[in-house]
Amino acid sequence: MSSLVYEFPLNEKCRNYLRLSELLLQIQHCRSLTASGQATALFKALLDIMELLERCDVRTDLAKDLELQKNKLAAWAQAPGIDAAALAQLEQQLGQLGQQLPRAARLGQQLREDKLLSAVRSRFAIPGGLCAFDVPQLHYWLNQARENQQRDIDGWQAQLQLLQQGLDLLLTLWREVGQFRPQQAINGFFQDNAELTEMIRLQLPTDVPAYPVVSGNKYRYTIRFMPIGNTDIGNIDFELANIK
Amino acid sequence: MSSLVYEFPLNEKCRNYLRLSELLLQIQHCRSLTASGQATALFKALLDIMELLERCDVRTDLAKDLELQKNKLAAWAQAPGIDAAALAQLEQQLGQLGQQLPRAARLGQQLREDKLLSAVRSRFAIPGGLCAFDVPQLHYWLNQARENQQRDIDGWQAQLQLLQQGLDLLLTLWREVGQFRPQQAINGFFQDNAELTEMIRLQLPTDVPAYPVVSGNKYRYTIRFMPIGNTDIGNIDFELANIK
Repeated sequence: MSSLVYEFPLNEKCRNYLRLSELLLQIQHCRSLTASGQATALFKALLDIMELLERCDVRTDLAKDLELQKNKLAAWAQAPGIDAAALAQLEQQLGQLGQQLPRAARLGQQLREDKLLSAVRSRFAIPGGLCAFDVPQLHYWLNQARENQQRDIDGWQAQLQLLQQGLDLLLTLWREVGQFRPQQAINGFFQDNAELTEMIRLQLPTDVPAYPVVSGNKYRYTIRFMPIGNTDIGNIDFELANIK
Repeated sequence: MSSLVYEFPLNEKCRNYLRLSELLLQIQHCRSLTASGQATALFKALLDIMELLERCDVRTDLAKDLELQKNKLAAWAQAPGIDAAALAQLEQQLGQLGQQLPRAARLGQQLREDKLLSAVRSRFAIPGGLCAFDVPQLHYWLNQARENQQRDIDGWQAQLQLLQQGLDLLLTLWREVGQFRPQQAINGFFQDNAELTEMIRLQLPTDVPAYPVVSGNKYRYTIRFMPIGNTDIGNIDFELANIK
């Protein structure tokens, strides 16, 4: 049976990681501008990333977390049947990114200096503010030759490449290490210790007409399953992974 | 040679018409949710429309403008070679919409009461705020069966159908009536009388590396062509239509 995974960060740092990662994915998926609406989604993702990077400089945190993963690899090296070459390659990647990130220029700086992005940004929050009369230079750009658009998008993505590589690597390792374990939410309610947990991952069969809402801090967290429609929420079986 | 049309409204009412019309088009183009990013664009369009309709009630203005068009049709009826049946049908459409619009419930009211739209709305302005952990019910909805999604989208669009029909009809008539005439902007600058003009339409060959910026009020307007890159702006030939 198909199931749906929900990820909930338990601290501000991890919340930023997941948001940035989701937005970077959105850029990758929309960058070809082959379907309607993809330009809107692409610009929203770029502007949101710019805003997140202005509020918090994730370079140091991310480098630290990558370093931590590198040290954990040492423990895996002892495991039987481990692919030593793959492990060494991963260790090298982690080491490189951990060094490059803190030395990189402040992330997103050049995006803020981009004329088109600035023009779009100044109007994005206005309802219907991306009309041709609001941002005529966007209308011009959207009707440019495909290769010119792709060159600009390449340039914007290049500014975020290091961030993307670091986040991809860290989140992949986190997700792979966290094992799902069966749990039950009595009357749709579940709580547990959050100590040292960065985020929880929660797997639910798609035919359960409910979605989880998580609140918590660094000590404890609670999951509450909210029913879709007017159905009664009973005990809910789900799977849970704690990422530490 | 291919060319690009820019439309600039010269009053607040027309600005709202063009914004709403553009957003309604975005919903139509993205409603199938077949490509990445279309959900983001769809929700942005729906939320923007909700906000515009809260700020201004376009029903009365739109009904009045449709009535005005209906009266203008009488003059066309005398034109040689006119299709009398088509004219009568158009007149009937205009009459119906002009009557239905002022009697309709306040537009967008039911959208504001929709639970999913409210949840998305409360997070849309937060950078990266549409992550699964921010709006888990959206994550649930996006992974619903296609037919459930389409049923919801149908319901949202139905709320806006009358608005869409009225705007489509009015803007089509406006656009068809306004004839393009050749003009020249000396050193990229052009100004003219705006009296009774609702909006201007401006046609520019796509190979001109410039975009127009318009400022104006109900008496006068000016067009200034802005160069793309560092090119010098000389005299620019373009075509202009005044919509009265």
